[in-house]
Amino acid sequence: MNRLAEALLSTPEMCAVFSTEAWLQRMLDAEAALARAEEVAGVIPAGTAGAIAAACRAEYFDAEEVAVQGAVAGTPVIALVRMLSERVTGGAADYVHFGATSQDIVDTGLMLQMRDALDLLDGQLLRLGEHCATLADRHRATPTVARTLGQHAVPMPFGLKAAQWLAAVTHHIERLRALRSTHLVAQLGGAGGTLAVLGAHGDRVTRLFAEELRLAAPDLPWHTRRDGIAEAVCALGVLAGAMAKVATDLVLLAQTEVAEVGAAAQGDKGRSSAMPHKQNPIDAALARTAANHAIGMVPVVLAAMAQEHERAAGGWQTEWNAVPATFGATAAAVGRVTDAIAALQVDTERMEAVSRLTDGRIMSEVISAALVPRLGRAAAQRAVADASRDAAETGRPFREALRDRLASLNVLSHDEIDALFAPERAAGSASLSIDRALDRFQTVQPR
Amino acid sequence: MNRLAEALLSTPEMCAVFSTEAWLQRMLDAEAALARAEEVAGVIPAGTAGAIAAACRAEYFDAEEVAVQGAVAGTPVIALVRMLSERVTGGAADYVHFGATSQDIVDTGLMLQMRDALDLLDGQLLRLGEHCATLADRHRATPTVARTLGQHAVPMPFGLKAAQWLAAVTHHIERLRALRSTHLVAQLGGAGGTLAVLGAHGDRVTRLFAEELRLAAPDLPWHTRRDGIAEAVCALGVLAGAMAKVATDLVLLAQTEVAEVGAAAQGDKGRSSAMPHKQNPIDAALARTAANHAIGMVPVVLAAMAQEHERAAGGWQTEWNAVPATFGATAAAVGRVTDAIAALQVDTERMEAVSRLTDGRIMSEVISAALVPRLGRAAAQRAVADASRDAAETGRPFREALRDRLASLNVLSHDEIDALFAPERAAGSASLSIDRALDRFQTVQPR
Amino acid sequence: MNRLAEALLSTPEMCAVFSTEAWLQRMLDAEAALARAEEVAGVIPAGTAGAIAAACRAEYFDAEEVAVQGAVAGTPVIALVRMLSERVTGGAADYVHFGATSQDIVDTGLMLQMRDALDLLDGQLLRLGEHCATLADRHRATPTVARTLGQHAVPMPFGLKAAQWLAAVTHHIERLRALRSTHLVAQLGGAGGTLAVLGAHGDRVTRLFAEELRLAAPDLPWHTRRDGIAEAVCALGVLAGAMAKVATDLVLLAQTEVAEVGAAAQGDKGRSSAMPHKQNPIDAALARTAANHAIGMVPVVLAAMAQEHERAAGGWQTEWNAVPATFGATAAAVGRVTDAIAALQVDTERMEAVSRLTDGRIMSEVISAALVPRLGRAAAQRAVADASRDAAETGRPFREALRDRLASLNVLSHDEIDALFAPERAAGSASLSIDRALDRFQTVQPR
Amino acid sequence: MNRLAEALLSTPEMCAVFSTEAWLQRMLDAEAALARAEEVAGVIPAGTAGAIAAACRAEYFDAEEVAVQGAVAGTPVIALVRMLSERVTGGAADYVHFGATSQDIVDTGLMLQMRDALDLLDGQLLRLGEHCATLADRHRATPTVARTLGQHAVPMPFGLKAAQWLAAVTHHIERLRALRSTHLVAQLGGAGGTLAVLGAHGDRVTRLFAEELRLAAPDLPWHTRRDGIAEAVCALGVLAGAMAKVATDLVLLAQTEVAEVGAAAQGDKGRSSAMPHKQNPIDAALARTAANHAIGMVPVVLAAMAQEHERAAGGWQTEWNAVPATFGATAAAVGRVTDAIAALQVDTERMEAVSRLTDGRIMSEVISAALVPRLGRAAAQRAVADASRDAAETGRPFREALRDRLASLNVLSHDEIDALFAPERAAGSASLSIDRALDRFQTVQPR
Repeated sequence: MNRLAEALLSTPEMCAVFSTEAWLQRMLDAEAALARAEEVAGVIPAGTAGAIAAACRAEYFDAEEVAVQGAVAGTPVIALVRMLSERVTGGAADYVHFGATSQDIVDTGLMLQMRDALDLLDGQLLRLGEHCATLADRHRATPTVARTLGQHAVPMPFGLKAAQWLAAVTHHIERLRALRSTHLVAQLGGAGGTLAVLGAHGDRVTRLFAEELRLAAPDLPWHTRRDGIAEAVCALGVLAGAMAKVATDLVLLAQTEVAEVGAAAQGDKGRSSAMPHKQNPIDAALARTAANHAIGMVPVVLAAMAQEHERAAGGWQTEWNAVPATFGATAAAVGRVTDAIAALQVDTERMEAVSRLTDGRIMSEVISAALVPRLGRAAAQRAVADASRDAAETGRPFREALRDRLASLNVLSHDEIDALFAPERAAGSASLSIDRALDRFQTVQPR
Repeated sequence: MNRLAEALLSTPEMCAVFSTEAWLQRMLDAEAALARAEEVAGVIPAGTAGAIAAACRAEYFDAEEVAVQGAVAGTPVIALVRMLSERVTGGAADYVHFGATSQDIVDTGLMLQMRDALDLLDGQLLRLGEHCATLADRHRATPTVARTLGQHAVPMPFGLKAAQWLAAVTHHIERLRALRSTHLVAQLGGAGGTLAVLGAHGDRVTRLFAEELRLAAPDLPWHTRRDGIAEAVCALGVLAGAMAKVATDLVLLAQTEVAEVGAAAQGDKGRSSAMPHKQNPIDAALARTAANHAIGMVPVVLAAMAQEHERAAGGWQTEWNAVPATFGATAAAVGRVTDAIAALQVDTERMEAVSRLTDGRIMSEVISAALVPRLGRAAAQRAVADASRDAAETGRPFREALRDRLASLNVLSHDEIDALFAPERAAGSASLSIDRALDRFQTVQPR
Repeated sequence: MNRLAEALLSTPEMCAVFSTEAWLQRMLDAEAALARAEEVAGVIPAGTAGAIAAACRAEYFDAEEVAVQGAVAGTPVIALVRMLSERVTGGAADYVHFGATSQDIVDTGLMLQMRDALDLLDGQLLRLGEHCATLADRHRATPTVARTLGQHAVPMPFGLKAAQWLAAVTHHIERLRALRSTHLVAQLGGAGGTLAVLGAHGDRVTRLFAEELRLAAPDLPWHTRRDGIAEAVCALGVLAGAMAKVATDLVLLAQTEVAEVGAAAQGDKGRSSAMPHKQNPIDAALARTAANHAIGMVPVVLAAMAQEHERAAGGWQTEWNAVPATFGATAAAVGRVTDAIAALQVDTERMEAVSRLTDGRIMSEVISAALVPRLGRAAAQRAVADASRDAAETGRPFREALRDRLASLNVLSHDEIDALFAPERAAGSASLSIDRALDRFQTVQPR
Repeated sequence: MNRLAEALLSTPEMCAVFSTEAWLQRMLDAEAALARAEEVAGVIPAGTAGAIAAACRAEYFDAEEVAVQGAVAGTPVIALVRMLSERVTGGAADYVHFGATSQDIVDTGLMLQMRDALDLLDGQLLRLGEHCATLADRHRATPTVARTLGQHAVPMPFGLKAAQWLAAVTHHIERLRALRSTHLVAQLGGAGGTLAVLGAHGDRVTRLFAEELRLAAPDLPWHTRRDGIAEAVCALGVLAGAMAKVATDLVLLAQTEVAEVGAAAQGDKGRSSAMPHKQNPIDAALARTAANHAIGMVPVVLAAMAQEHERAAGGWQTEWNAVPATFGATAAAVGRVTDAIAALQVDTERMEAVSRLTDGRIMSEVISAALVPRLGRAAAQRAVADASRDAAETGRPFREALRDRLASLNVLSHDEIDALFAPERAAGSASLSIDRALDRFQTVQPR
């Protein structure tokens, strides 16, 4: 894999969680916990678990070799068990991996990696939320415009945009925490999901095994029931989609013609190889790149859910890359958006100027609503639309055109019309919405 | 659209929920609730809401015309508001849609449709669960085999397969109910999400509006924050994936060479136009077709999440078909799987025969585990593997080959070896797992 | 299906090609051609084909009934053959569908529909190409800017943007015509792909059958070899992606802050239900919606390619909706882009103004290149970048800042510097590129 | 990235083509070719190109550093040009990358990598084709059954299955060669696609540049017109889908109950960590895994086609990983299928036995067709279906039941009935189809 792609589609921290070495260690953690659980349950001889656990350290083994052999054998666990058994001293080696199947170890290891990965994302999102919250609060009165289908619609404070971003961040903190508490489930079923080797002890060993690893214990093994994995991947896909929304906003707000926000120059970041004057919104752009990849993994995992019988020939193995890749790309998307927002230079003067670009037409929603009691809705909308067109054709100010129109209809004095254009008429619930977003974010803050 | 495709990718009930008429009615419900909320809040004149609500009946309008005009205008709400205003008597017409934007009505209407759709799926899944539960309980001791990568692995009861299907069904009942209680959120923001027209009353109107419709009230408008929609679609995709798993199992179990299950002949269902002797597993096959489509909508909705600014130019409109299509295809998948399982003919004699196909080799996991204390793991596995190969090459029974091998190693008597092959050694936790799945399903039953 | 979704995701013409009635007729065409081929080959009695062909008219049957029964049976051909046989007079009924299997008829019928659909798209693309060609030629000297990552980069004529759109259109005309000539292949294999019933006549009948329908004859049946179908769907997905590019450009160029293009007001099109002043780029927005759906079908069809054995249980049936849906959505995307471009109002004054927004910095690529021989590249780029920053910080004109910078470096006179800013220095190959795109489009024009 | 995932989703050869070092070299090749073209065209001073080209060797640079800096800057070309310029001796450094933009180098480099990658795939497919051709020819008379929806349908030779696989392989050799000859197009446009810096020489330089690299010259730059890239990725997705079909067949044919094919034991390949007796079809399973990933990249690339203006903020960068990843996963799928087929053990005795499993019912298509002239179709089909059911219910042979049924209808003697069951009646066009597939494969063989 090209290192550029790798750097774009993960973060160093997430790479570490899903590195070959960490993966091996997490599988070894599962083997160690299994031995301990089986010793407590009396399934394997006393003293065995200690010997096994002592050998369950990734640095004792060649992780890459486990991976390469796994690609040949179709499962990494054959090589892992062989190497581990060679390392374990005394008779304990016979009880390595006792009663388990490859998938028990791979799936449980993945759960442990997912826990680490969810913790990383939680931290990332809290940081991103902080930045959004700061923007939301600081700019709760900074005027700019709401845009619908790319067209100026109505006035809104820039803080409300940031509050919307914040609301998404808070939502995903909550969603991922919910997943962390319910979807990290140990896997233990033995070759066919019956735990036959463990006889009457299967259930007890399962519970002890899960407890050792601080995972939830499964009601029953889930070798080919992948709802939990698929839901976690979907949650990441939705989070990536939310990041793509923020990144798209940032790219659009940074357009030369809009220029409401920009990024501070930082070395080569955003520079062009041909145009010395440029500053590209590169973090936002690459957040979209990362989000595209995260979303792309979702249908791969969903389509792989049709895992036949008690172990799939291809579907399960699809998750081995797809799940880490989704975490990586999602983390990259969150990270890039965070970098973009952390370095965001908000040009409030430009926002003010932008909000005047339509010469007051962005007040047309509130003005026409205000005219309804006098004119009825149809006439109110017509008056505003006619004034708008009149101003456009003649080049004179919209407010003036509206005055004439309303004078001809015998409604409202000049002063009353001026009052319609007062910015506070456009405030609506914006400030309350910002407070709501800030309050909700408070509730997810660590104490 | 070809009616065949329509019939394959929805159910009649789900078609009704998302029909043009039902869609119009749900938008009208939103308009009526808005008027009531605004009247209570004192935003529009007393007496207005009644007049508006009285006109909010789909049968008064040409739903198809609203749709067709909506396709031209890019929003159905302009035509809807015009038609509705014409129907409303007296001055109340001026307060139709007051302070709202198209998206408020379309999104809120969708939420109401989604509630109906989730209720339908809940009923479908409860029925499917019943059938699975019956199979799980009835066949808790029916011997068949666990298959991993298509190969016979270990003995397992057929009831455990059904219990796994049941566990997925129960999980999705819980998941969809959770969504129903948290993800059905009213939309109200006005043109740019500020509710400017409602002035200080925005929040109160929002809460009354949601209450009228028995939807949750939003913290803040969510015009371009589509996490809730995306998560609902993902939940359906995961459910569809779970159905594809069951359907795949059914197709495979019905193969001529396996023949553990079949479908009773029902008219033309599963017949061939060329081969009079055939009975195809057509419900299971078409469940896979439907699931493919449901899953296919998920990335479409996720990619459409990058909804720019305060209303998207294309992304939002993507949901108009994608969300109903996902509900339709998922309902079809659930329905087809239910039909397949309801008509399932389980051939327990064939299962028994199938479980003997490997001449006892499916006991090799438990046998080699049982030999570990005597031989150590490596030697135990080698003894079993050697006996298996020996039997394959010479054609004599595996058990006999194993006896010889163990005799040469001086472990276990003939009787002890026979005991290793006793079916109860393979039981493991299967029955407990079945109980767990049944118990959990009990908890989601309506009282 | 909601009629709005239907209207957004197809065109009336494409709906007609894939209507239930047209679908039935195309299957009947296949049955008629089969009978004729078999009569010519002497497989069925002389005089039979005429009687069968006479009955092969969709209006004789209830197409919806065929569809509904097909959804039950899992294939529409059982009902179709039964109804057709009832309608055929005399002994000829016995030879309806002789030697064929359901898939032969469904696949061949689909090929006939695809031919009609490709013809429609060809016409649509030629019309779209005309509009693009007109724009490219008319605006070959209309100055505007190239934008990279949303930032103004260098000057370019608007005609070159249109030429790029045109180049894509021409490419897709060529691609779809290539598909039409190679990928429309008759299907005939009988129940298992061996044409066993036709004995020694299988190959001759296949060739006659294909000839009757003006389809290519297959080397061998392709019941579960779906490369052709998948490639056609991919071609549509790529075309949809190309349309999304054009639509995205149009949405962005129409933004209030950019306003280089707009759409003429046409009734409700692009109006807002809340803001009387707005004109939304609704055709471009809905082109994106349609493209999203077309692209979404591609992985569904690709994933369904894993069609097992000699007829798939679910994969094949997936195409029944997915293929027509892709054609529909692609046609809608092309149609919407065409409507948008046909109604495009190009504001050349605004373009000129926009191209001056960066105060000449968009000349920095050519200026710094021109300075290389005097200063070396590093110094040249530094000079331009410094002048740009200097101008930004002090507010004075970029050209002036550059003059100072270069004066301090002792290179170039004022006149030479002014010459660097001459628009013709930025022309490059733009006009030639426009000619190339126009020429290539000429080659695909019908004579 | 976990090395296991890397090993599953590419081949060592494809990894080399897309390694960080090879990527850097290909970009350097583009820089060298650009300098040569510009020197020939007189754009840069004589003697410059040689100095630049001499420095364009990847081993002079730290490829990983270029990648890492590229991830920061958002383009690798800034670092590459800086490093390259430092390495180039004399004044030539000033003319490194002259007139080009980052995307010119990255895109052209990708084209060179794609050429290498297509060559690798061509070789892989030729090898796979050889194996399929051998199977098709050797088993042209090996009886087995056609299966439709998993049910035994009609007799067919195993060679015809292999011929179908071969036909797909041949098709994809042709398709990829067509792409290689038309879709490898140099990119050169300068910052905004106008080649402004090159003045009147733009076109000549473009042609010389392409010639140097043996790429096609573009009609006009294609910075945001990605049809060619998207089509190449689609072609890989379709090839991956074709591989998934073969792999699925292999997994199904290897099922314990079917066992028509198996894999020779090779070390740990296909072994189980828990069941010593097992031999899993691991190459076929992992071919499906790889195909799932290749297909998953297709919509990612298609959705990224909406590349705005003259350079996209996220869409283009999405290809940087998506294109190599698709090549890698497709190569892995082809490689795994090849390994599976190369090691395939075909059990012809088992095939014969399997083909007798339905006791002759698989002859029902030809038998009922043969009865049509005597009984008419309806009665013929009824007779066969009744006999089939009768046999199933009473347990006696189907042929006997059919004899009775036909005797009661007074048609056909015993001998005539026996003749209906003669295997040669089922041969149909199978052998001819095999020849066709073999002949076509011959045409793509290198001479």
